[in-house]
Amino acid sequence: MAHNTSYLINGSFNAIISPFDRGFAYGDGIFRTMKIVDGLPESWPQHYQKLVADCAVINIVCPSAELLMSDLQQLFSPDEEAVAKIIITRGEGNRGYTPPAITAPMRVVTKSPMPNYPVERFETGVNLIVCETRLAAQPLLAGIKSLNRLENVLARMEWSDVHIANGFAEGILLDNNDNVIECTAANIFARFSNTLITPSLASCGIAGITRQRVINVAHMLSLKVVEETIDLKKLLTADEVIICNSLYGAWQVRTIQKTALKNDGLAAIIRAALIT
Amino acid sequence: MAHNTSYLINGSFNAIISPFDRGFAYGDGIFRTMKIVDGLPESWPQHYQKLVADCAVINIVCPSAELLMSDLQQLFSPDEEAVAKIIITRGEGNRGYTPPAITAPMRVVTKSPMPNYPVERFETGVNLIVCETRLAAQPLLAGIKSLNRLENVLARMEWSDVHIANGFAEGILLDNNDNVIECTAANIFARFSNTLITPSLASCGIAGITRQRVINVAHMLSLKVVEETIDLKKLLTADEVIICNSLYGAWQVRTIQKTALKNDGLAAIIRAALIT
Repeated sequence: MAHNTSYLINGSFNAIISPFDRGFAYGDGIFRTMKIVDGLPESWPQHYQKLVADCAVINIVCPSAELLMSDLQQLFSPDEEAVAKIIITRGEGNRGYTPPAITAPMRVVTKSPMPNYPVERFETGVNLIVCETRLAAQPLLAGIKSLNRLENVLARMEWSDVHIANGFAEGILLDNNDNVIECTAANIFARFSNTLITPSLASCGIAGITRQRVINVAHMLSLKVVEETIDLKKLLTADEVIICNSLYGAWQVRTIQKTALKNDGLAAIIRAALIT
Repeated sequence: MAHNTSYLINGSFNAIISPFDRGFAYGDGIFRTMKIVDGLPESWPQHYQKLVADCAVINIVCPSAELLMSDLQQLFSPDEEAVAKIIITRGEGNRGYTPPAITAPMRVVTKSPMPNYPVERFETGVNLIVCETRLAAQPLLAGIKSLNRLENVLARMEWSDVHIANGFAEGILLDNNDNVIECTAANIFARFSNTLITPSLASCGIAGITRQRVINVAHMLSLKVVEETIDLKKLLTADEVIICNSLYGAWQVRTIQKTALKNDGLAAIIRAALIT
């Protein structure tokens, strides 16, 4: 077997994941995905702050920024462009839901190639399906990127390569009250005049760091931002809709199911603002 | 490092769990826990049937019963009493929620010691807390024992060794409408005269195989069984309450929070009926 060069476990190329690790057994952990440019993670302060915050929600002490940065530097060469994923679990325990009295969190850093996104997604935007899979309301875990992601998996299985060939790039996730929450791997913003609405994530969904960065730059663009409940019907009447994540920045939404949306170039403006 | 003798991955003592395994990355898999007596799993046909059924819900093809039984026989000696856990994941994939076009499920079998339950839990019963953690309603995953178990973990963290010293052994999980669903690692039954009510698991909760076995034996005991919505207030007025799982069979519930419940010995009768 070739020497593993695509991940580090607790800083080692040779460590293994135990089946008794609680991340594996119960999804008892959290993760983040980030873009590596010239060997370094984009928006690292924001990513690290969110790692710490998400760990705190489920009572895990996040490894230090120095340790994680040292892992990233071991794994990525200084000229490399790629995708890093950092996973923090509660670590090993005995069988059963009871966490050990003293826990030693496990950290895993993986390397994957940067996706080769079709250029038209940046130029003319993307089409969205509306997923049948609904997000369950769980306020205790809302906003965090835990390892419990079966809903996202089921939702993602709703569209195929045929959809992708037709320009469909994402699926909208609703809650059980027909409110828009997010996409399977993106947050969503709807512009109404000079107000940007992004769904409240008080009951479900993941608050991505690019969502927060879009909120921050919107102020500079003289856009007011509100986080509130927005249902699908209202979303379809927006002046513009964009989706965002850490890998591609922002994409304009061209259609939702069959409904065409207007395009005044908001995604391109946001992308430019995110870079500066 | 000592040779691993406590688990098998895909039938091997030397295989490892990749961080790209979807069970680890997303909780994209299912599991079961069973008692091993004289080296063999109790209620194996029921456990295997449920493994297949749970896998099917998330579109995983379950490994054959022969393969899993061969793993169990490798891992447990013919005279051994222990606990086996079987975990089936969707297997390795690339980064991202999209499952690979062709998946090779991973199977993991682990060995743990049989818990040393205090004898009074069988003789006089147990006390239950009512957990603050509520179960989210997700009909797509209701009933199955997926690897997305953070709710159970958070609930289990609500009581400590001090509670256990005071006879508290489990916690009741409610949904967001104050309906009783289950305990963190047990199903629950309430007897009203000659009717046994067990909560409907249409929206959340795990349908354990011992729950099904209790339903089956109840008929032999001239008890009618209904699966329906039951709220906490109604549960507290039951003639008797028992909880059950695959390791201890059934325990009488003595108190819920501070409310004392009657005890006509149902748990002992059910335990005896489960053995025959």
